[in-house]
Amino acid sequence: MNKTQITAEPGIPQIIIAREFDAPRDLVFRAYTDPELLVRWLGPRDLALTVERYETRDGGKWRYVNTDTQGNTYGFHGVFHGDPSPDAIVQTFEFEGAPGHVKLDCITLHERGSKTLVRTVSAFSSAEDRDAMIASGMERGVRDSAERLEDLLGKLQAS
Amino acid sequence: MNKTQITAEPGIPQIIIAREFDAPRDLVFRAYTDPELLVRWLGPRDLALTVERYETRDGGKWRYVNTDTQGNTYGFHGVFHGDPSPDAIVQTFEFEGAPGHVKLDCITLHERGSKTLVRTVSAFSSAEDRDAMIASGMERGVRDSAERLEDLLGKLQAS
Repeated sequence: MNKTQITAEPGIPQIIIAREFDAPRDLVFRAYTDPELLVRWLGPRDLALTVERYETRDGGKWRYVNTDTQGNTYGFHGVFHGDPSPDAIVQTFEFEGAPGHVKLDCITLHERGSKTLVRTVSAFSSAEDRDAMIASGMERGVRDSAERLEDLLGKLQAS
Repeated sequence: MNKTQITAEPGIPQIIIAREFDAPRDLVFRAYTDPELLVRWLGPRDLALTVERYETRDGGKWRYVNTDTQGNTYGFHGVFHGDPSPDAIVQTFEFEGAPGHVKLDCITLHERGSKTLVRTVSAFSSAEDRDAMIASGMERGVRDSAERLEDLLGKLQAS
């Protein structure tokens, strides 16, 4: 599997994203939890990412802001449930443009020989919340992020 | 409505609980966020509740333990997303007997004249997680809790 699979069934308040990366699990985990790496791959290509805080521990808070070429900003924040580990990164997620609509993301990293399968399950409070997230153009961000992460992981391993 | 409504549709990883209480919204909010009140109503009647921590603020952690008459203990923990308010108490929830299966609870309190409608939406990462929670006997705990809370709110208003 070298392509990002996005599963969003009608009426089910959930999105499942799966993608295999050609990199060891520990390196993928680092890319997900080190803010200096995060800004190099997370989000759509045409948006800049600024990480304001990223406290990767139980109860830690995170917040980052996307900025587009016109200078518009899009803030996101949440908290971590449990200490993040390659077994599970569990975090809440709220887009500040739609306050009060919180989802829960559970990211698990699975070793597949020398590769790593990343599986992200997003649980929403309603199917409407889920549909709004999809309508916002989430898919582009997910696909861009995966391609950018693949490139970054390749560079980190080559260096 | 004077009865607890529990909605859990087949295949949908979600539980919605609704119940009206004959008490003002601020008092119901206090009962949900003050650990000294929480131990007087949360959980099945035959279990004792001990609150170890209950940090009702953004990123705050909570943990409580149920103890049955034989001395068996059941621990639960999570974190708060955002500062809890009567508009929304958002928190993660993990039963330590089934580690790794985290849900997101969003509790909203709605003023209905002199009464308060409490609506709790639990979002699970899978329908299997949701079904396991129901199979664990959750319903008894929910119904006992609501009756105990109704009694407590009555006493608090009479005193």
